[in-house]
Amino acid sequence: MPPPRAWIAIAGPGEAAPWELEAAEEAGAAVADAGCGLVCGGLGGVMEAACRGARSRGGLTVGLLPGTDRDAANGWVVVALPTGLGEARNALVVRAADAVVAIGGGWGTLSEIALALKAGVPVVGLGTWEVAREGARVEGVVAAADPRAAVAEALRLCGR
Amino acid sequence: MPPPRAWIAIAGPGEAAPWELEAAEEAGAAVADAGCGLVCGGLGGVMEAACRGARSRGGLTVGLLPGTDRDAANGWVVVALPTGLGEARNALVVRAADAVVAIGGGWGTLSEIALALKAGVPVVGLGTWEVAREGARVEGVVAAADPRAAVAEALRLCGR
Amino acid sequence: MPPPRAWIAIAGPGEAAPWELEAAEEAGAAVADAGCGLVCGGLGGVMEAACRGARSRGGLTVGLLPGTDRDAANGWVVVALPTGLGEARNALVVRAADAVVAIGGGWGTLSEIALALKAGVPVVGLGTWEVAREGARVEGVVAAADPRAAVAEALRLCGR
Amino acid sequence: MPPPRAWIAIAGPGEAAPWELEAAEEAGAAVADAGCGLVCGGLGGVMEAACRGARSRGGLTVGLLPGTDRDAANGWVVVALPTGLGEARNALVVRAADAVVAIGGGWGTLSEIALALKAGVPVVGLGTWEVAREGARVEGVVAAADPRAAVAEALRLCGR
Repeated sequence: MPPPRAWIAIAGPGEAAPWELEAAEEAGAAVADAGCGLVCGGLGGVMEAACRGARSRGGLTVGLLPGTDRDAANGWVVVALPTGLGEARNALVVRAADAVVAIGGGWGTLSEIALALKAGVPVVGLGTWEVAREGARVEGVVAAADPRAAVAEALRLCGR
Repeated sequence: MPPPRAWIAIAGPGEAAPWELEAAEEAGAAVADAGCGLVCGGLGGVMEAACRGARSRGGLTVGLLPGTDRDAANGWVVVALPTGLGEARNALVVRAADAVVAIGGGWGTLSEIALALKAGVPVVGLGTWEVAREGARVEGVVAAADPRAAVAEALRLCGR
Repeated sequence: MPPPRAWIAIAGPGEAAPWELEAAEEAGAAVADAGCGLVCGGLGGVMEAACRGARSRGGLTVGLLPGTDRDAANGWVVVALPTGLGEARNALVVRAADAVVAIGGGWGTLSEIALALKAGVPVVGLGTWEVAREGARVEGVVAAADPRAAVAEALRLCGR
Repeated sequence: MPPPRAWIAIAGPGEAAPWELEAAEEAGAAVADAGCGLVCGGLGGVMEAACRGARSRGGLTVGLLPGTDRDAANGWVVVALPTGLGEARNALVVRAADAVVAIGGGWGTLSEIALALKAGVPVVGLGTWEVAREGARVEGVVAAADPRAAVAEALRLCGR
């Protein structure tokens, strides 16, 4: 088991709509199919679906948990790290990733998008946040047509 | 010197436009006039202008620096804390605040807005980010007409 | 209120013996008398006694709390920062200090001593940990005779 | 690749003596032989030797790096996480572990021992720190005769 070719973070809400779960599972499978590792926040919803998808293809999954209880990780996380940092762990998810795929999402997902773009880590989005200043759309998140295209674009953007 | 009545974070970019600096200085002064402490990221631009405003009224200013060098703080920070956490310190700025006033801003400011709303800390904005999902504006940041109104609204929202 | 001349951390247990509390209160007073700010973990025991001593002389006190609840701070903390980092905040206490005075102490205090010495921050001790490797005492913590001497030595060692 | 049976942290200095490196490599191999994952600080010296030992038996290795550069990880880390937290990452190494094996060590290792004991995580030591208060040895680190015994004792103490 060599280190993965690259690490892709999949960000999204813990309480997710059916389309978000389907997209996350497909994106997780695409991450593993590309020989990449998956990093996420380790909890339920989008995070769980993404890990399930990655594990279905034999991928390696890392969950950076907000609390101190390893058992809070979803059942498809191989490396569960209870950081005890609360939402400050979002910065660590981003640092651990060569690129981020954001799917749907709440405020936590928006913080991961913002932290990634601040750090220069590319972000590809599926039905996620759009942001503007003074009425003018600000580019940053690259929209993708579907989960497989999102992962392919993420890999292209980070040059791995 | 008793503890302040409340702590207000002022978030905004380190490289700021003239209007952002003017708004930040006025907001900082309003924070001090209200008997509140000011917390921020401790660096230049909006952070420095806000601290200068607060100090001009004898206010207490706290700067949570990303690096480990205390001397990176702007000259109007009374309590300079070199966290060494990088942008993960944005989560600590938000935790330290009863309410956040966001002025203009880049990706770091957007991360503070998102982390605050995730944590249930109210955010008032001046010329800052607007966010949407699937074309529909999502409420969260309360817009204010001017810096003094922003601080007053922040205090009202946090109930202090 | 200009920034303090230096920041001194006082480290010690939350559940403390009477001698530890007396020493902490006297050390806190000495920190304020020297024109320095006091930084600590913000809770009870040695932390509370040190803050009480500093406030009795009009000093500025900062408490870096492990949890997210500001109300967990003792009543003599002026700047209470709920970091939400758990014991990882011990590293921030050390980073915020020009020197550390360790009084008595449990494992948390030992971690602060070790983190300080790792970072090159001088540590002065009163009845605190002694450490050895293979039976040979390892120097690091400078022993002091009493609380006022400890603070004076801490200031001398950090060159402030 | 299911999650490991338990996670064992191996703590020790980045600049290590030959006996420390030999002990670390043997301990790392024992961790993998027991079906456990290895977590460490990800850098050189004891950390590198432990990872090399674990990888020689097909084990899974996690490195929690202090900086933001993944390439700082030693060549036997499978999951390299650039935390960007500096020495505050020592608290995360401890949180990620069911038990800690400390080998030799400097101040950073002592901080990991102290943080583990504070958190209730058992620590087994090989030629590492001894600690005392007022001249009386304080128990905490369980001494082991050799690397394989250390890992066995660590597993016994954490009940995995």
